[in-house]
Amino acid sequence: MGYRLYYWPTIEGRGEFIRLALEEVGADYEDVGRRGDGADFEAVAEVLRREGAAEIPFAPPVLEVEGHLIAQTANILLFLGDRHGLAPSDEFGRLWAHQLQLTIADWVVEIHDTHHPVGATLYYEQQRAASKRRAEVFRSARLPKWLAYFERVLATNPAGGDFLVGDDLTAADLSLFQVIAGLRYAFPRAMARLEPDHPRVMALQDRVAERPRIGAYLASPRRIPFNEDGIFRHYPELDG
Amino acid sequence: MGYRLYYWPTIEGRGEFIRLALEEVGADYEDVGRRGDGADFEAVAEVLRREGAAEIPFAPPVLEVEGHLIAQTANILLFLGDRHGLAPSDEFGRLWAHQLQLTIADWVVEIHDTHHPVGATLYYEQQRAASKRRAEVFRSARLPKWLAYFERVLATNPAGGDFLVGDDLTAADLSLFQVIAGLRYAFPRAMARLEPDHPRVMALQDRVAERPRIGAYLASPRRIPFNEDGIFRHYPELDG
Repeated sequence: MGYRLYYWPTIEGRGEFIRLALEEVGADYEDVGRRGDGADFEAVAEVLRREGAAEIPFAPPVLEVEGHLIAQTANILLFLGDRHGLAPSDEFGRLWAHQLQLTIADWVVEIHDTHHPVGATLYYEQQRAASKRRAEVFRSARLPKWLAYFERVLATNPAGGDFLVGDDLTAADLSLFQVIAGLRYAFPRAMARLEPDHPRVMALQDRVAERPRIGAYLASPRRIPFNEDGIFRHYPELDG
Repeated sequence: MGYRLYYWPTIEGRGEFIRLALEEVGADYEDVGRRGDGADFEAVAEVLRREGAAEIPFAPPVLEVEGHLIAQTANILLFLGDRHGLAPSDEFGRLWAHQLQLTIADWVVEIHDTHHPVGATLYYEQQRAASKRRAEVFRSARLPKWLAYFERVLATNPAGGDFLVGDDLTAADLSLFQVIAGLRYAFPRAMARLEPDHPRVMALQDRVAERPRIGAYLASPRRIPFNEDGIFRHYPELDG
């Protein structure tokens, strides 16, 4: 089965959560925005305007499959999880994994908004003062709370805590990996301080990075480096 | 089947999206925080600390069912939609309805953050200047975009556009109703200006309000009035 992924070609962004899942399962997919010269923004914009589709995406990422357009990161991962064994098969296990996925999505919004507290239509430089205040709240109150939450989920997993849910990998593990990788890039000082208190989260980080397909992907040119156009931006003044 | 809903008792907040679905299907549920004297915050806080549960909620709302704790608004509605016929039964229709639900969730975050751009741990009064800037961006750029999106979804629904998905009510219709009701409360001037251009969204609003169980609920004491502790707050200085 061939998938088409529509996402902005020059950032990891929310598309990266989908790319990691596609890579882990070895899916046949085309990253539409990166074909040709590698920056086909228009192909991504087109899917948002497409007429005649049964579904209308509000924003990328969008996964095209069997003529359908699936949007919303967590929704795409719900679909891929079921199709490719990246989710539990029982009803409540599946809901629990999706609950974690949505909780990670909330975290990602908070991380993004540290550099865009006033609005996504303005540049960072137009909201730097508010960003500094928001980042201070994030580093001191929110980041410790988020990390402690996922540490607790791993610590109380009755299957042992090698993964967030049960004893096997889910899309939520891959997404948590991406968030931690991004936080290390964006907030290296804050993370260096907090990491020792969250050994289970950091062990999961290593466990995901060492999976053969994920490791090969991370080392490939398909992995876009973090940069200051994406969700995770390194602005030293926001790192305390 | 008896449900227990855990949500802060004095605001509609995200719990209201769940209450509307429970009321529409005539579910047997207890609104735990509102039992007794009507403001049992501790009962809601307890569910976040509960030990031995298979699932760990990060925040309310939480729905307890058959010993499981389902959290994340859209996840609870995914569950209720399947159980009570508030979602399509085919795979792609179900994903499309969930995609809309998650898109509404993104909109709700933006609305909340008009009065909390710097952080949820600070009072509005501590971030009023940033709020004014964020609300201006919201009113001028984002609110028209969101309304136009849902108008387009209704206009292109091949089943006629009485509902967002197909020809029957889904949880997403109830949630869109709640967002429009809240926007009318929070931004009456901006909405009065924009409503005439979005007749399908406004017709859906009336259609939901006139459903017998929803109408009875809205007229009952179970419906908490909008207020300045919730997501939708009327601060005239943010309404332009």
